[in-house]
Amino acid sequence: MNIIDIITKKKNHEPLTTEEIKYVIENYLNDNIKDYQMSSLLMAIVLNGMNEEEINSLTKFMLESGDRIDLTSLGTAVADKHSTGGVGDKTTLIVAPLVASCGVKVAKMSGRGLSHTGGTIDKLEAIPGFVTNLTEEEFLNQVNNIGLSIITSTKNLVPADKKIYALRDVTGTVESPALIASSIMSKKIASGSHNLVLDIKVGSGALIKDLETAKELANIMIKIGNSNNMKVICLLTNMDIPLGNNIGNTLEVEEAINILMGKTDGPLKELCVAIASYMVSLGLNISYEEAEKQILDNLKTGKAYTKFLEFVQAQHGDLSKMTKKANIYQVKTNKPGYLTNIDAYKLGRLSMELGAGRENKEDTIDYSAGIIINKKINDYLNIDDVVYTVYTNKDINNLKFDIFTLSETPIENPKLIYEIIK
Amino acid sequence: MNIIDIITKKKNHEPLTTEEIKYVIENYLNDNIKDYQMSSLLMAIVLNGMNEEEINSLTKFMLESGDRIDLTSLGTAVADKHSTGGVGDKTTLIVAPLVASCGVKVAKMSGRGLSHTGGTIDKLEAIPGFVTNLTEEEFLNQVNNIGLSIITSTKNLVPADKKIYALRDVTGTVESPALIASSIMSKKIASGSHNLVLDIKVGSGALIKDLETAKELANIMIKIGNSNNMKVICLLTNMDIPLGNNIGNTLEVEEAINILMGKTDGPLKELCVAIASYMVSLGLNISYEEAEKQILDNLKTGKAYTKFLEFVQAQHGDLSKMTKKANIYQVKTNKPGYLTNIDAYKLGRLSMELGAGRENKEDTIDYSAGIIINKKINDYLNIDDVVYTVYTNKDINNLKFDIFTLSETPIENPKLIYEIIK
Repeated sequence: MNIIDIITKKKNHEPLTTEEIKYVIENYLNDNIKDYQMSSLLMAIVLNGMNEEEINSLTKFMLESGDRIDLTSLGTAVADKHSTGGVGDKTTLIVAPLVASCGVKVAKMSGRGLSHTGGTIDKLEAIPGFVTNLTEEEFLNQVNNIGLSIITSTKNLVPADKKIYALRDVTGTVESPALIASSIMSKKIASGSHNLVLDIKVGSGALIKDLETAKELANIMIKIGNSNNMKVICLLTNMDIPLGNNIGNTLEVEEAINILMGKTDGPLKELCVAIASYMVSLGLNISYEEAEKQILDNLKTGKAYTKFLEFVQAQHGDLSKMTKKANIYQVKTNKPGYLTNIDAYKLGRLSMELGAGRENKEDTIDYSAGIIINKKINDYLNIDDVVYTVYTNKDINNLKFDIFTLSETPIENPKLIYEIIK
Repeated sequence: MNIIDIITKKKNHEPLTTEEIKYVIENYLNDNIKDYQMSSLLMAIVLNGMNEEEINSLTKFMLESGDRIDLTSLGTAVADKHSTGGVGDKTTLIVAPLVASCGVKVAKMSGRGLSHTGGTIDKLEAIPGFVTNLTEEEFLNQVNNIGLSIITSTKNLVPADKKIYALRDVTGTVESPALIASSIMSKKIASGSHNLVLDIKVGSGALIKDLETAKELANIMIKIGNSNNMKVICLLTNMDIPLGNNIGNTLEVEEAINILMGKTDGPLKELCVAIASYMVSLGLNISYEEAEKQILDNLKTGKAYTKFLEFVQAQHGDLSKMTKKANIYQVKTNKPGYLTNIDAYKLGRLSMELGAGRENKEDTIDYSAGIIINKKINDYLNIDDVVYTVYTNKDINNLKFDIFTLSETPIENPKLIYEIIK
């Protein structure tokens, strides 16, 4: 078996055997297969795809490349979530305490942001003192005590994915249903939960740009989950416009708190309620309607917010010390009209440039940096109305207005949730 | 401009601009673009292709990456040839002296073999003393004196091709009309001749497996040539079966001499006459028929062979010292039947394993090693007839018979030249 024959097969649209996929993963991890060979194979996979059997094998051998977390000590009322990544997506900060407040345990490993999308760990670390690298024992103890913990990976989870993902990121080979599905599902299976709600973001600000590809991805991940003793529900949701009003780490924690305190309504809250309700429904094996009722109750009564405070305290975070030290700039309209589009991708890029994200892995984050969107879709704007507010410690010039579209007439309100696939 | 955006464009089937192609070539040569990024882009080009404008730009910037040879001092009666590579293809050894004997100068730069196909330079170096690294002055002087010289590159010709070709070879990205055409044509334009005959090999033993792709490649290369002030004639020829009977360096020199001495007939001679006639027709601007008459005359009278001896002597080769020091094994039939196929690819691989070729660039060649095919297509073989003879200094076991196919009835004689495209 050799890598050039394997690349040639995939180039010629032939499916790879289980043994060939095993060979690729093992030999890439031990450096027998070089980066330049792996990237050629990855591009062939991006363009020619993989069938179900290949994707299952890929997931299996990625999973077997590292350790797994055993969550059986937590019982059966456990659920996990994952978002494929978007702009302003702080749902985990809201959903996790909401779900835990209903008695479904959340033992979650999260990642950091890269490029124009943020990561939950970065957002949590915007809270002064917040510790994200608990030991496995501390992690499981905390989940047993308060029903909730969110950390970076404790163990050597799916090292093959780490190495392959880093290569995909710099070789233009990220956007492939087969590669995305095996990457996400190997990590989720390794993380130990048997109930999973996936939020698949679709649109200009997301990895997946169209609904067809999103559906394909959903079906692949559901199949992989099912064949690994995992129940999976996929929400296909809008990422043409950002989720919520705040982008940037401290700003997103503040917005999450506002939702949990019942101060804000809108699409972000709506999506969090849906994700949390599906997680509770899976974890407690009850109907969606029953679950949603509990979720809405716990939001209203403040139980969810109390759980959030308990969670932050357990991981040594101190919300009272959270501040924004940044210069503030307001961007105003230069013509009147209805706000009909907010470009999530451009806002995500801008937020990164302001210091809220990383262009390269080594970059450090300015937690105070970010953007608040001051208007909603279909708001009517007069000249000199503030459209967005920028927080940054960088020298900036050229704050662009082309991130927003103004029109003479309002549009139909954009859909938030396109489809639910189980 | 950045490489990930460029890879993403090609991945999405969008043509690259001239500026983008320039950026890729320049930044790959100076290591700003990494091997793993280039191989991802190369695979996207292999699978999504390039349009005429892109291929022209690629050829242009590859060409501009290095030096060019100026052959104007040789006059206009100059012609070059190139074969896309096959098994047993020693046509240059025969064609070059044949053409030179007709008064058309051949100033040729050739390459070494890699993988299962041989290279002209390796074959010439099987002649003891033969010098292939003349200076440019020595090279041009020799062509002016005797009408013929064959050497490795003197100058820094198309360094971008050298670097890209080496990467393609180890990343499964060799088989692309766009990449093959720009690689061959940039080198041929840099080598300075304005008349070119291309032998495009088609079949199991060749890079190009089907006639459609070969035609596409021919048309691309003719267009590139024409827009660079070069006349190009393409022969599309059979490489399902090896060319001639001998494979391996010393063995191929011996077979070339036999053809030049008029001792052997068959497809190899027929193809050499065709290629040489097209070169002479281009170089002297006469009809194919006139050229062919001269070629056949010079073969018959021994003029071509005399030119070959003159050429070998001029480059310090000593044919009297050429020997084969090897163990000889004969492979015999185990059943009777008509010989209906000889697998060029498998024979090429076997020859390489016997020591006649290189699997890796660092491997040294055993000039004595190789294979003689003792039978022709449609010969009737009885049990224990010798089908092929192996020369090697390696320990071998398992000499396979599956390289040949025996059938109960003969087949239609395979075509040698499928098509001529001008």
